[in-house]
Amino acid sequence: MIVNKRIGLLVLMRESMGALVLLAAWDFAVVVLYQLFHQEWMEIPGLPLSLIGSAIALFMNVRNNSAYARWWEGRTLWGAVTNNSRSFGRQVVTILGGRKDLVRAMAAYPHALRQALGEIDASEDIARLLPSEMAQRIHGWVNQPNGILLELGRGVTEESTRLGIDGALHGQIDRILSDLANAQGGLERIRKTPLPIQYSAVPRVLANVFCIVLPISAVQTLGWLTPLGSSLVGVLFVVLDKMGGDLQEPFRASPHALPMATMARGIETDLLQSIGDAPLPPIPVKNGIQL
Amino acid sequence: MIVNKRIGLLVLMRESMGALVLLAAWDFAVVVLYQLFHQEWMEIPGLPLSLIGSAIALFMNVRNNSAYARWWEGRTLWGAVTNNSRSFGRQVVTILGGRKDLVRAMAAYPHALRQALGEIDASEDIARLLPSEMAQRIHGWVNQPNGILLELGRGVTEESTRLGIDGALHGQIDRILSDLANAQGGLERIRKTPLPIQYSAVPRVLANVFCIVLPISAVQTLGWLTPLGSSLVGVLFVVLDKMGGDLQEPFRASPHALPMATMARGIETDLLQSIGDAPLPPIPVKNGIQL
Amino acid sequence: MIVNKRIGLLVLMRESMGALVLLAAWDFAVVVLYQLFHQEWMEIPGLPLSLIGSAIALFMNVRNNSAYARWWEGRTLWGAVTNNSRSFGRQVVTILGGRKDLVRAMAAYPHALRQALGEIDASEDIARLLPSEMAQRIHGWVNQPNGILLELGRGVTEESTRLGIDGALHGQIDRILSDLANAQGGLERIRKTPLPIQYSAVPRVLANVFCIVLPISAVQTLGWLTPLGSSLVGVLFVVLDKMGGDLQEPFRASPHALPMATMARGIETDLLQSIGDAPLPPIPVKNGIQL
Amino acid sequence: MIVNKRIGLLVLMRESMGALVLLAAWDFAVVVLYQLFHQEWMEIPGLPLSLIGSAIALFMNVRNNSAYARWWEGRTLWGAVTNNSRSFGRQVVTILGGRKDLVRAMAAYPHALRQALGEIDASEDIARLLPSEMAQRIHGWVNQPNGILLELGRGVTEESTRLGIDGALHGQIDRILSDLANAQGGLERIRKTPLPIQYSAVPRVLANVFCIVLPISAVQTLGWLTPLGSSLVGVLFVVLDKMGGDLQEPFRASPHALPMATMARGIETDLLQSIGDAPLPPIPVKNGIQL
Amino acid sequence: MIVNKRIGLLVLMRESMGALVLLAAWDFAVVVLYQLFHQEWMEIPGLPLSLIGSAIALFMNVRNNSAYARWWEGRTLWGAVTNNSRSFGRQVVTILGGRKDLVRAMAAYPHALRQALGEIDASEDIARLLPSEMAQRIHGWVNQPNGILLELGRGVTEESTRLGIDGALHGQIDRILSDLANAQGGLERIRKTPLPIQYSAVPRVLANVFCIVLPISAVQTLGWLTPLGSSLVGVLFVVLDKMGGDLQEPFRASPHALPMATMARGIETDLLQSIGDAPLPPIPVKNGIQL
Repeated sequence: MIVNKRIGLLVLMRESMGALVLLAAWDFAVVVLYQLFHQEWMEIPGLPLSLIGSAIALFMNVRNNSAYARWWEGRTLWGAVTNNSRSFGRQVVTILGGRKDLVRAMAAYPHALRQALGEIDASEDIARLLPSEMAQRIHGWVNQPNGILLELGRGVTEESTRLGIDGALHGQIDRILSDLANAQGGLERIRKTPLPIQYSAVPRVLANVFCIVLPISAVQTLGWLTPLGSSLVGVLFVVLDKMGGDLQEPFRASPHALPMATMARGIETDLLQSIGDAPLPPIPVKNGIQL
Repeated sequence: MIVNKRIGLLVLMRESMGALVLLAAWDFAVVVLYQLFHQEWMEIPGLPLSLIGSAIALFMNVRNNSAYARWWEGRTLWGAVTNNSRSFGRQVVTILGGRKDLVRAMAAYPHALRQALGEIDASEDIARLLPSEMAQRIHGWVNQPNGILLELGRGVTEESTRLGIDGALHGQIDRILSDLANAQGGLERIRKTPLPIQYSAVPRVLANVFCIVLPISAVQTLGWLTPLGSSLVGVLFVVLDKMGGDLQEPFRASPHALPMATMARGIETDLLQSIGDAPLPPIPVKNGIQL
Repeated sequence: MIVNKRIGLLVLMRESMGALVLLAAWDFAVVVLYQLFHQEWMEIPGLPLSLIGSAIALFMNVRNNSAYARWWEGRTLWGAVTNNSRSFGRQVVTILGGRKDLVRAMAAYPHALRQALGEIDASEDIARLLPSEMAQRIHGWVNQPNGILLELGRGVTEESTRLGIDGALHGQIDRILSDLANAQGGLERIRKTPLPIQYSAVPRVLANVFCIVLPISAVQTLGWLTPLGSSLVGVLFVVLDKMGGDLQEPFRASPHALPMATMARGIETDLLQSIGDAPLPPIPVKNGIQL
Repeated sequence: MIVNKRIGLLVLMRESMGALVLLAAWDFAVVVLYQLFHQEWMEIPGLPLSLIGSAIALFMNVRNNSAYARWWEGRTLWGAVTNNSRSFGRQVVTILGGRKDLVRAMAAYPHALRQALGEIDASEDIARLLPSEMAQRIHGWVNQPNGILLELGRGVTEESTRLGIDGALHGQIDRILSDLANAQGGLERIRKTPLPIQYSAVPRVLANVFCIVLPISAVQTLGWLTPLGSSLVGVLFVVLDKMGGDLQEPFRASPHALPMATMARGIETDLLQSIGDAPLPPIPVKNGIQL
Repeated sequence: MIVNKRIGLLVLMRESMGALVLLAAWDFAVVVLYQLFHQEWMEIPGLPLSLIGSAIALFMNVRNNSAYARWWEGRTLWGAVTNNSRSFGRQVVTILGGRKDLVRAMAAYPHALRQALGEIDASEDIARLLPSEMAQRIHGWVNQPNGILLELGRGVTEESTRLGIDGALHGQIDRILSDLANAQGGLERIRKTPLPIQYSAVPRVLANVFCIVLPISAVQTLGWLTPLGSSLVGVLFVVLDKMGGDLQEPFRASPHALPMATMARGIETDLLQSIGDAPLPPIPVKNGIQL
């Protein structure tokens, strides 16, 4: 996630450069063709371009709104993981007698989750935190984070039985595990179900068609200045299109992804401090980007 | 669900071809009539087409937003089925002594649900997973998934009584069944209540009227190029209209439907692994489409 | 609720006919006045009609979105009634020993609710299902469905005491009754609080003013074709206005109302099957309309 | 709350009259200045007024949407008060042995709440319903409704202890009080946090500037008809602006406020009937306005 | 938070002045260049500025809507802190025997939270309210509010054990602490995750480019009046841009921030009154701004 505006704008600019150069080249080709060879068939002033352009811009904003909603829902669900991890930690410390292996396994959970969501390697963090007998029992499972939740549930039942904890309190702690399962499932949903093709790919196609037709229609009134006018519109559409693309997949490795490593470290810190373990330092921001 | 952008665009193109050909034919007929016979009554430059076109485009975007919300709500509710199935599995394994028939019946539940929602045949999967005495007791029920939930509730009560499980824990497990009932009811709601006719059919009618009138008004300024200008608008409207149609019924058999078979298999895998059964392999993506 | 698109469009057409005829008559009157008497004061080409029209269309779409949200919220709350009724049935069968009068009273509840919401007569269904001693105790109450919930609560307490059911389980069942009370209250909220006058009546007034002024301004450029151009806009605005009106009151007797009878019958069927009673057949769709 | 459309439109008209008269006067002044003195500096046809007008109209609709969302959230939270009051009543009658003072105190609660929210005097209703020893204990508290909730909690604990009610059931009843606290806090949030200045005041300023500039630009093409064209836009903007203003403060004394007295009376009626007390008649609608 | 409209408009005006002066200077420079030197290359009437302007305005409104949603979500989460603090207070007083140190620690919690969110110093308030032995135990923790929640959980467990409180009631009180953890996590989410760069910085860049190009295109038709026309658009865009900037960070020290000190004091007052402590007076509004 970009946390520095200046650097962020540079990143956006670098990522958009390719499309903009192509666009300007096309605009230039059109104006040269028109001015040098006076292609008469190009004189089509009546094309309803303003209507089409407005409709595409509207469509892109609706799509971007949905992409942003996905991104923010992803962040909110990570927030739910944070909140419920902390609540679980509080309950283990204040109700279950502070069994440290359960708190550490909970601290391993967000790392296992970011590994599953982002297709990145967090095995070092998991190995550091997850008790080895738990790691062995869920070895080979398709869904590792789900396995950790099951192990946590097992630990809670053992400890509740050992301490003679009331079933209602036990149930309340188990409820937190269900809430974690809900958050995890929500994150997987965003990960596995991309925006439908109609939202993810169609706006770009429409915008490209529009940008190809626009200079042909504009060249008669704008003449040699066509690339300027046409590029202004092009920049707008490229930027609007890029926005949806950047935000719609919040877990894909990119500068626009959610800072899952930082969030997992934050959860780890809060949990380890509650059982007296010394936490690792926070992950530093590099080049304006939080990992 | 389409998971490959390139293939997805081809699918969309194939599905839209019919409407576009009709549209182009009409545009061509208009321009021929005007150019060859110089029908003077066609000269109606003042029609407020830009206003009408913008209003229809706006309306379609509002409608598409609702259609997408339905699609995403459907996916979210399937996510709730996933989450609560897993939580139920965790509770059976860690609290109820791991009774395998209950876990298997839960694994059958999403198959029964997709059969009811999609009007498809999942009887093989159900027979493979649902214990036969349960299958017999709910034979002939109108609502099979609801029957499975009732059987699960029965099993939980039996097992809680047998093991002397505290009522509060029993209640917490029963709560998961109620959450499943809520998700199921939400899915049935989307299935049984289509978008109101004002949202599902009216935009298409308005867009068609607009596309019929448009070339008549545009032909004077555009001449032989009318089909180009008019088709650009037509493509836009056909695509916008199609989008709502594709997304508004997320369970109808189509390439745009939610991948219910894949999701049910995913739930099954997580559940079976937690009781040590070997899971079936995931369902492969065919031609860029996930079933 | 209309479930057949073709019939639905016919219904919409029939309901809009009056407004459209009036509109066309006015357009025709304007054009005749202008063409025959050449009223010069009518020449007001500069009216910012495009701006006004766009603003009204935008406003209508915002309003319609709210009206649709009400309609869908109403449907969702009925869904909550369905889900919680089923969960209550499951709990009575699997936990409370299957007391049939409670399940039947629950099956009567949605009928009492639709009677209260829709101001229709469902007394036959209620009498068929609600145990008579319960009916007597709540005789004369202002809020009958609320009375049934209270009777259900009483029954649950009796039965829990008799069977020595744990308080936590009792509480879990009572929670379902609270969830039903929440859904019922939400439905009453939609029923008793119409869209504010600014949303329900103002758009129509603005659209009417616009449709009256439009032909006066358009007649100079369109001449005898004014009624065509003007009517296209008029149809659009009449349809947009109608949409909000149809959807904003989802319980008022109209073809656009939610199918409360069908939903109540569906709940009844699921509940009666769970205690072995034979259900009534579903309510047939008549003329493309589900009651 | 206005419940009669005809009366409602009259109310809106009366409330908007001042602004419209001012606007028309300005339009008239402009046209007189132009026509009589032919101020040449007024000839500024190129002002991008259509763009500005559309942007302001869009902004107003976005703002109005937020204002409506506040109004509807306020109504929904009152609905939550209604639902949970009823559920509390049901629980007191069916679980806590029907202690009448608790039910009456709950019936006093919505009156205390509307007094706090609307800065109106409901002391008569509170005195009629709230047991005097409770009233004394919370005398002088800043937050009276919160005090009543605390007294209800105290009563529930007393009665649970006296009857030997299970802790889980006690907890379930206490949960309803927490839900009431949530609804109350939500209502106070809407009451104490107005729409930010950017939403509440800026649209009006922009619209006023636009309405002042508009006739200056329009007078050249419209001449003596300027006031008509300009007023049409003015009416639209005044109405759109008024809408946000009316809906953004749902508890301020105005014809557009939520009918808090009626809702509180409704809650009271349902509660009193459940303990056999005779309810007061509903509050009549006066001049199309429900209090 | 600004609570006085008149003062609020002055604040907005003061904050926007810089941008507006720069804009007007540029407009003036353009018109002088054109009028004095008659730069012919400036004659580019055909630039699709209306389309671009509309698209930017639409984009800004979508962004502002998201910024407002963040602001309101922040306020709603603070509301959840308020509600659950009160519910915790009620439970301590009516169920846990009214242990005063727990109520005071809860009153310290919102102060610790606003210190963490706003990077302001609330140590005096915390020291005044938080029992010193709790303060010592969480000394040096990264997340102080989370530490207080853990201490509250510890106190609740101690007191429940001492009084022999049922586990279900204990669980119900612990649930309130989990709800507080959820609200706190939500607030931290808003604090730590800014709007993505595409929403926070791109609209301003686009608007600036537009405002630079606009007078160049408008100068031919508007002549010496260019600065007026161009500034009207500029004011609109500056105001729309500012809105998003003001609302997107609801905890940053600014007149537009949420009144966290006032809210924390309000919570404190309600809690202290419930245990008979005399509350401090509310924080006064200064210069129309609530802190």
